[in-house]
Amino acid sequence: MEQIFHEIKIKTQGQGLYNFTDQAISWLNKQKISNGILNINILHTSASLVTQENADPDVLDDLKNFFERLVPMNNKLYKHTTEGKDDMPAHIKSALTSSQITLSIKNKKIMLGTWQALYLFEHRLEKHTRLLSLHLIGN
Amino acid sequence: MEQIFHEIKIKTQGQGLYNFTDQAISWLNKQKISNGILNINILHTSASLVTQENADPDVLDDLKNFFERLVPMNNKLYKHTTEGKDDMPAHIKSALTSSQITLSIKNKKIMLGTWQALYLFEHRLEKHTRLLSLHLIGN
Amino acid sequence: MEQIFHEIKIKTQGQGLYNFTDQAISWLNKQKISNGILNINILHTSASLVTQENADPDVLDDLKNFFERLVPMNNKLYKHTTEGKDDMPAHIKSALTSSQITLSIKNKKIMLGTWQALYLFEHRLEKHTRLLSLHLIGN
Repeated sequence: MEQIFHEIKIKTQGQGLYNFTDQAISWLNKQKISNGILNINILHTSASLVTQENADPDVLDDLKNFFERLVPMNNKLYKHTTEGKDDMPAHIKSALTSSQITLSIKNKKIMLGTWQALYLFEHRLEKHTRLLSLHLIGN
Repeated sequence: MEQIFHEIKIKTQGQGLYNFTDQAISWLNKQKISNGILNINILHTSASLVTQENADPDVLDDLKNFFERLVPMNNKLYKHTTEGKDDMPAHIKSALTSSQITLSIKNKKIMLGTWQALYLFEHRLEKHTRLLSLHLIGN
Repeated sequence: MEQIFHEIKIKTQGQGLYNFTDQAISWLNKQKISNGILNINILHTSASLVTQENADPDVLDDLKNFFERLVPMNNKLYKHTTEGKDDMPAHIKSALTSSQITLSIKNKKIMLGTWQALYLFEHRLEKHTRLLSLHLIGN
């Protein structure tokens, strides 16, 4: 049983979902581990991780818009407002989705359904560089 | 350290929570691994996984109804409407819950509380056959 | 590859977020495993786990208040009311967040961002003793 650690950097350009499946697969293909666990954590609390549909880009817009309606950028609703109107909603959206995904690797493939892809969900308005910790354990 | 992969098929009959704890335990009991990680992923983006109460069936109805109110089936709210009025809400409900659960196995038992059970949460109206990937790693 | 199981007890004093990062790190520091997976499960369905900001306590209040508005304690909305007005909302809030977190351990450190901490999110009004299952697998 071996372990490999890696970090993926994603530059975001405002709110929305950023597909990083290919980046994960590309790194995975270079490793000698065929079967194991791929544990992915985002090292931030104002962006999160989701597994979502990879086909129709409208789905990604609808997701972004739904969370926008659900968690409005309205300073009157929050005490924590010093970091901008989008910061507290970003923390809430992160809690409503997830900061990590644990995937299974079988024969060098990530066990995902045909329509599934891995997304970073950026909740802040400005550009950010986001770090994902990738940890592969297996043999 | 060994690894075993398995797949569970669940036939759903419309929206609601489907308890698959016994199916997981029944498979687990046949394996030689006593301690380890059981990683479960649903291979779809319009159904999800939750750990929830196993006692009062009203809890399951209330959960279904709450998510129904929170994410209404109203085509005016979404751009992605070609797959039916329940499809985009299903993707959103999946993002609000989770596509995977990682469990700990100790002495051949899943570390769950007395009142906890594992559920597939179906978000589509029609019948579906849902695939869960089970991956056991341990010794 | 070795495995160690542990349990953390957290006494909660009503709704809110309880930081248990130091308790997890303190236990981790005593173990001989340097690299691996730390799988944490809460053994209850009316409290949950989130990774959130560790800096401004207002963030924790805003989180609590947001979930309170989103899932009101109003018995008219639910069928499951026998365990108190806060019980069904507690189950829903648990489904909206998560019952488990899977972390990566590298060189004896939990792979968390600078501003991240681990929280138990208590959703019940009364005092409770909550159990977390910690499971470390690695070498």
